[in-house]
Amino acid sequence: MILPKIEVCFSPDFLFQHELKGKIVVVADIFRATSCMVTAFAHGIESIIPVAKVEDCKVLQSEGLLAAAERDGLKVEGFDLDNSPFSYMDSHLKGKTIAVTTTNGTQAIHQSIHSDTIVIGSFLNISAVARYISNVNKSCIILCAGWKGQYNLEDTLFAGALIEKVLEDFTIEQDAAYSALALYQFSKHEIFNFVQKSAHVKRLAKLNIHKDIEFCLTFDQYQVLPIYTNGKLININSPS
Amino acid sequence: MILPKIEVCFSPDFLFQHELKGKIVVVADIFRATSCMVTAFAHGIESIIPVAKVEDCKVLQSEGLLAAAERDGLKVEGFDLDNSPFSYMDSHLKGKTIAVTTTNGTQAIHQSIHSDTIVIGSFLNISAVARYISNVNKSCIILCAGWKGQYNLEDTLFAGALIEKVLEDFTIEQDAAYSALALYQFSKHEIFNFVQKSAHVKRLAKLNIHKDIEFCLTFDQYQVLPIYTNGKLININSPS
Repeated sequence: MILPKIEVCFSPDFLFQHELKGKIVVVADIFRATSCMVTAFAHGIESIIPVAKVEDCKVLQSEGLLAAAERDGLKVEGFDLDNSPFSYMDSHLKGKTIAVTTTNGTQAIHQSIHSDTIVIGSFLNISAVARYISNVNKSCIILCAGWKGQYNLEDTLFAGALIEKVLEDFTIEQDAAYSALALYQFSKHEIFNFVQKSAHVKRLAKLNIHKDIEFCLTFDQYQVLPIYTNGKLININSPS
Repeated sequence: MILPKIEVCFSPDFLFQHELKGKIVVVADIFRATSCMVTAFAHGIESIIPVAKVEDCKVLQSEGLLAAAERDGLKVEGFDLDNSPFSYMDSHLKGKTIAVTTTNGTQAIHQSIHSDTIVIGSFLNISAVARYISNVNKSCIILCAGWKGQYNLEDTLFAGALIEKVLEDFTIEQDAAYSALALYQFSKHEIFNFVQKSAHVKRLAKLNIHKDIEFCLTFDQYQVLPIYTNGKLININSPS
């Protein structure tokens, strides 16, 4: 049996190097967009509409939706929700639809629309994602949202952790995937300390989101599996 | 004292993300272009003219220069030299000028021309490169030539090894540099085995260049320091 391939793309800016057609793309923006989305679905949010621009998010808000906009790690003034997963652990949000725009994560989703399926990944739902991609038997690209187009460490470590979980079901024929796996395997017993020293986390640390960072690095808090369909994200597993 | 920055660029395709002006760029194409260039200078070659296209290399050959052209890891028919460092250990080449084009390495040099200085790096002359960039006190980009625009492991490990040598003289404010350093530090005691498993080396292994790979991963064989000036590479250290 020929196994499908698994690849890593370090940033949406490098996605032009990948053929998307017929593939699953797992989008990861660990700090914090995809971690928030997964947390939101786990708390019963009905759907999320990812939009590229702050203005588009504003329009949807004016039409009555809840809206979350983040730029440079901060909540944009006038919106309902910020980019902390803890903001989505709220029973009042159950059954609601939220419009979301973020610096990196929502752009990554939009740039993947020519793939077969877009899945939202995070450490919080990593095993649910692993089970899904292993069962589908299609080649897979793990798309790191990065930071303003640049490579970042935490999304790469997520890619490595996901690859480790599905190693038996895919082949690796790309050094980016091999390196992400190695970097994760080398650091997994001290992942929090390792990430703490990264440039991106030092940047985020100024925002006082230590608690968010710790939570976003927690494995398997939830079993939800958000996928993108008809312009919005929905959860195809039951929330748990 | 404010230290200059050190950054890693994983491929010439990603160089648009970096400001080149006023910086040193260290170009690394470990398997095998920059390893060949360093070996050539160590054996007394006078200068190397890196050209982007095979046709341009042919023109220089017709004008009487020695010429080396490689595509997809193989010597292009009709040229004098291939892309193995062992081909450059030849006393007949002493004092000569060679025109060279390769799949990745020569392109990386041409894309760096708006920087302040271009230095040719490899494991073979890593300490000479480290001393140079530490002394100059300018910010530095280590440009991995990659493989056809994509990230590769061996150039990244070189970047990590070089960063380790100059850590006291630079600051790291970029996750790519932090990750390259970590990947090198995690793997340095088994670097040959680690690289052997990479996708790119598996590709190269079909070319039967095991001996080349082993040599290209050897630290400090030479003290030469090739830099790019007036359209050609010259060695500014004495060959040794």
